[in-house]
Amino acid sequence: MEHIVKSYDAEIRELRSLISRMGGLVEDQLSAAITALSEYDVELAAKVKAGDRQIDDLEIQVENTAVSIFARRAPVADDLREIISSLKMSAVLERAGDYAKNIAKRTIAIAQERPVGFPPTIVQMSELAATMLRDVMDAYVRHNADAAMDVWYRDEQLDNLHNTAYRQLIARMVEMPDHINTWTHLLMIAKNLERIGDQTTNLAEQIYYSVKGTILEDTRPKHDLTSSATSGPDASA
Amino acid sequence: MEHIVKSYDAEIRELRSLISRMGGLVEDQLSAAITALSEYDVELAAKVKAGDRQIDDLEIQVENTAVSIFARRAPVADDLREIISSLKMSAVLERAGDYAKNIAKRTIAIAQERPVGFPPTIVQMSELAATMLRDVMDAYVRHNADAAMDVWYRDEQLDNLHNTAYRQLIARMVEMPDHINTWTHLLMIAKNLERIGDQTTNLAEQIYYSVKGTILEDTRPKHDLTSSATSGPDASA
Repeated sequence: MEHIVKSYDAEIRELRSLISRMGGLVEDQLSAAITALSEYDVELAAKVKAGDRQIDDLEIQVENTAVSIFARRAPVADDLREIISSLKMSAVLERAGDYAKNIAKRTIAIAQERPVGFPPTIVQMSELAATMLRDVMDAYVRHNADAAMDVWYRDEQLDNLHNTAYRQLIARMVEMPDHINTWTHLLMIAKNLERIGDQTTNLAEQIYYSVKGTILEDTRPKHDLTSSATSGPDASA
Repeated sequence: MEHIVKSYDAEIRELRSLISRMGGLVEDQLSAAITALSEYDVELAAKVKAGDRQIDDLEIQVENTAVSIFARRAPVADDLREIISSLKMSAVLERAGDYAKNIAKRTIAIAQERPVGFPPTIVQMSELAATMLRDVMDAYVRHNADAAMDVWYRDEQLDNLHNTAYRQLIARMVEMPDHINTWTHLLMIAKNLERIGDQTTNLAEQIYYSVKGTILEDTRPKHDLTSSATSGPDASA
């Protein structure tokens, strides 16, 4: 009996370790993508593009491990909740990895244009997104719902930076239309970073659910205003 | 015994019916969002924005139903596969619903700008995305892996339309910078439609997995080139 219990625990630990590895890889990919962007490093960007495959493979491993636990252990209560959370977290991390990969692809395209520099807000966004991702994965390892919620609230800052980056890039499009391709890619990169922030809040919600057993009701006001941006006098509202 | 089997079947049917309802709602939201955009109908767009909540609620119902089946039935084999697929499909449909909602938000912003018209490619994209969504949900109901794969292949056409829309909008940004906000929102709307297409391929993959029991290896070449778009002579390559 003890053998079976131990082995079950080992399987759950395996699942946690796969999720942690996914989170670590996404952090690495994000920070490499932004380094590549800042330094016009096409080689590094190509490495990030290729590296996404590892994250995809880990997602499949999470699913296979979860299916195997479901089929052989018939988990209930806390274990059931944790396994379902793991499936969802792996899907969210896979998507966050896709955003990092997309930043790398756009970096390669930007490097083919004449250099023009870009708003430092993009770098600030990427630093905040990377910190949020690291902190939410720490909260996951420590099974800490409060720490997860702390990350969840920080997404507001990232949304505010995104609003700023959006306005800066729209202004540059008008001032320097010769670089329109670069500005458009940067606009999409800023959007990718904002979406990575959204994914970390999804992770935070899953951690909360896994620890507390209840779904967090989303009552935080949405601060990303770029979908409603107008050129009128209230453009910065 | 027969009673238990029947009741189990009823639970699986309930799960399928929730997924079908989610798919139907996303179709409705998408087509309403595009009608609102074509007709500058702010009221309809606001209705789409508010309507997304129903899709979110259905996702929670899918999860609760799945958890209840896991906990009480300990599903194995085909049933286990189907329930895991349902969880994933509901997450994908929730995301597709978010894209429709985002189109509605941007429509409201565009309606506040001076009218300027927009490339018909956007409408073509939305029609194709809506058809793909409808067909993939039909494939789901009919448990038809071939029909799902057919949708999966059609995403290439949507990617090609997106490449065209992207080039058209970049050109208008340069020609008519006074309408930069409108062009930017339309660029993001085109991106949303392309992403809805990606979600339908995710649904197709889940249906394939659910019917065949093996994961479809993604070998289709990626045709969306906008992340690599440059302003050089190969810009249209």
